[in-house]
Amino acid sequence: MPLSDALNRHKEALLAALEVDDRSSLAARLPELRSADIAEILQDLLEGGQTLRARALLDGLPIERRANVIGYLYGEEQLAIAAGMSDDRLQAVLEEMGGDERTDLFKALDDDRRETLLRRMAHREREELKRLASYAEGTAGALMTADYVAIPAGMTVSRAMMRVRQTAPDAETVYQLYVVDLEGRLAGTLSLRQLMVARPGARVDDMMIHGVIHAAVETPQEEVARIVARYDLLALPVVDEARRLVGIVTHDDALDVMESEATEDIHKGMSIGALEGGVSRVPLWSLYRKRVTWLVLLVFGNLLSGAGIAHYEAIISAQVALVFFLPLLIGSGGNAGAQAATLTVRGMATGDVGVRDWSKLFGRELLVAGALGVTMALAVAPIGVFRGGEAVAMVVAISMIAIVLFGSLLGMCLPFVLDRLGWDPATASAPLVTTLIDASGVLIYFGIASLVL
Amino acid sequence: MPLSDALNRHKEALLAALEVDDRSSLAARLPELRSADIAEILQDLLEGGQTLRARALLDGLPIERRANVIGYLYGEEQLAIAAGMSDDRLQAVLEEMGGDERTDLFKALDDDRRETLLRRMAHREREELKRLASYAEGTAGALMTADYVAIPAGMTVSRAMMRVRQTAPDAETVYQLYVVDLEGRLAGTLSLRQLMVARPGARVDDMMIHGVIHAAVETPQEEVARIVARYDLLALPVVDEARRLVGIVTHDDALDVMESEATEDIHKGMSIGALEGGVSRVPLWSLYRKRVTWLVLLVFGNLLSGAGIAHYEAIISAQVALVFFLPLLIGSGGNAGAQAATLTVRGMATGDVGVRDWSKLFGRELLVAGALGVTMALAVAPIGVFRGGEAVAMVVAISMIAIVLFGSLLGMCLPFVLDRLGWDPATASAPLVTTLIDASGVLIYFGIASLVL
Repeated sequence: MPLSDALNRHKEALLAALEVDDRSSLAARLPELRSADIAEILQDLLEGGQTLRARALLDGLPIERRANVIGYLYGEEQLAIAAGMSDDRLQAVLEEMGGDERTDLFKALDDDRRETLLRRMAHREREELKRLASYAEGTAGALMTADYVAIPAGMTVSRAMMRVRQTAPDAETVYQLYVVDLEGRLAGTLSLRQLMVARPGARVDDMMIHGVIHAAVETPQEEVARIVARYDLLALPVVDEARRLVGIVTHDDALDVMESEATEDIHKGMSIGALEGGVSRVPLWSLYRKRVTWLVLLVFGNLLSGAGIAHYEAIISAQVALVFFLPLLIGSGGNAGAQAATLTVRGMATGDVGVRDWSKLFGRELLVAGALGVTMALAVAPIGVFRGGEAVAMVVAISMIAIVLFGSLLGMCLPFVLDRLGWDPATASAPLVTTLIDASGVLIYFGIASLVL
Repeated sequence: MPLSDALNRHKEALLAALEVDDRSSLAARLPELRSADIAEILQDLLEGGQTLRARALLDGLPIERRANVIGYLYGEEQLAIAAGMSDDRLQAVLEEMGGDERTDLFKALDDDRRETLLRRMAHREREELKRLASYAEGTAGALMTADYVAIPAGMTVSRAMMRVRQTAPDAETVYQLYVVDLEGRLAGTLSLRQLMVARPGARVDDMMIHGVIHAAVETPQEEVARIVARYDLLALPVVDEARRLVGIVTHDDALDVMESEATEDIHKGMSIGALEGGVSRVPLWSLYRKRVTWLVLLVFGNLLSGAGIAHYEAIISAQVALVFFLPLLIGSGGNAGAQAATLTVRGMATGDVGVRDWSKLFGRELLVAGALGVTMALAVAPIGVFRGGEAVAMVVAISMIAIVLFGSLLGMCLPFVLDRLGWDPATASAPLVTTLIDASGVLIYFGIASLVL
């Protein structure tokens, strides 16, 4: 990866310059690095307890870049940086930021600091910031920026073009324009590209697309990302309950949401709660808490398997060879079931699977899991003959098919059931499904053994 | 979700119109739907075997939209649609498509059809198509489009603006412009926004950003998506080995890659191979094949656990109560280990965890897993006392700590080991990790039991 090689060289040179406080070398290096890269260096410094050095690095940047870099940090890191800034400086940084990042930084500050900053702002700014900060985390409202280009309905192309030029330095994107009526309601959209090739005297109303795809302020962020992805949007307009345009979510934010939601889903699939930050940086205590809940719950779930075994203690004592196959059978059922649950949960998350696809998926899983069970039974049968004779082999093979089939159907159905109950289908994690199948597998296996032997 | 409600209403009306072949109603409904939505209806029709109806739907669209809609389909679906088109029509569709989609459709066709179409094309078009089709799937080359706006170095702002206007209808994006030198090498980049507010007589060279972030044609697509996300790019330029600009990957394609890579990673985490298409549509045979490989391999892996149990048959016969705790202990170890493996694998995929973070992560996992093990041991100890007395409780508690600790460290380390061996770290899936921990857990548990009892 040539990009990351060059990046690491730049980073090391920068750190060396910081070490000896070589300001001229620092000033020469900084323009070579992107804001995202400087933010990463800052994170390393903050994590290593070198807060002063981190602040020195930021001080070497022009105000615009400084605001940009701070926008890339997590809440706690922003708080550590802001603590070392005077109110004047912090206000200047806030003013340089885009609407969505300004709100995030504002939310990261403590109450006193927020009050002080609010008092220093102009009325309109203050109201906008308060409004943006009021939306719940994880919604379109919390994700959006108010820095979009709105064009009043009825404007001509040439005047709209002038409006674009005027707002160019501030707007988050000038490439998608939103036409609003007198009440501020979203009436249509057109692209800068359309505007550029249009006749100057034409009216935007005649060119705009009606029935604009939009989100509401309370739309969950994963749905926002999905809409942006589905319709290849540059930005998604967000409206309030009166259909008034209140902000836009841009493509880069949708991409970030897509990545963090995927990470959250992957962690959820293993019964790990949502982490705030990467696994290598998040505090240990928080990592412990996010992992322990389900692990302990499942300890008790696993007692069911133990109880099942206790119930069949007589047959186990008589045929200890049966225990040999126990981990294999419940393990295989658990694996197949976890696969089925994962396929369903991910299908639901991407919108590929809907609630009404239930019966179709059940039929498909019946066929696939049946075939999987038979294949695995064939693989295990010879070992059954070798270890315990033909009768044991038969019990093991039949149990394998039954457990794999039951486990897969359970895994496939559980997300639908959870969804029906108003829970997150992703709660059907691999550990939960495996635990449930372990317990049922014990009963199925020894049940069949009792019947046959 | 108001968006999907309105969507479903439109879809049903459209299907009803198709049913009775009501062309005027069809013509009235189609403009209300986006290409992505029409593509979804097409997919449903094709899947239901209603190929003729699907073709009738496409015929109701203007050629530009038709090309757009076909671009949303998977390879096999494209083939089914193309089979019903004359060479003339197919050529017209290809000509309307963007460079990246044209290449995908071309690749989906059979050899004869490809030859026929190539013969009908102009020399330059043919060479470009062949070149784009030659890049390996899953690389920047296969993802990129050649429809970008290149500006020769030295051009003035006003001439560059003219160039933008001329290429506006064809280019994939006109909002990011790429400055190339006489050899076609990427020299810099500037945004349309910069151009719009610049003095008409200024030269692009004086405004452009040097050291443009770029990818090589062979850069893997997941890295492309990560670069676009990291630097908030509208498009990522792609260069060949001579640093010549050969294409761009746009933000919407990066978003699609991010989603499909996440799905692939989630499936891999459960030992499911990469599916071509959603779980509800992919052929059953392919679903079986992608799931069976590891399931059967792990059957043999699970034999290790059985062998462990066989080895300790004497102590099991003497103390059958020990078997009661077996699923609980190996299940808990497996869950904690799968969590640790998942955290590492996802951290590596997002770039949060690098190879040199190994020792840091090991130290962190030691602390967290130690705490998890102690918590779970405390949860299970009382049940140990109740079921088998104090000695058994002690064995179970010590085993729990040992198994959770060992399992977590194994799960955390395995992705690093695999990466070191040149394998995909994601091979450290939950089923593999669980199987390994099951086997080691049996040995640890009965080993400790033999020592204590």
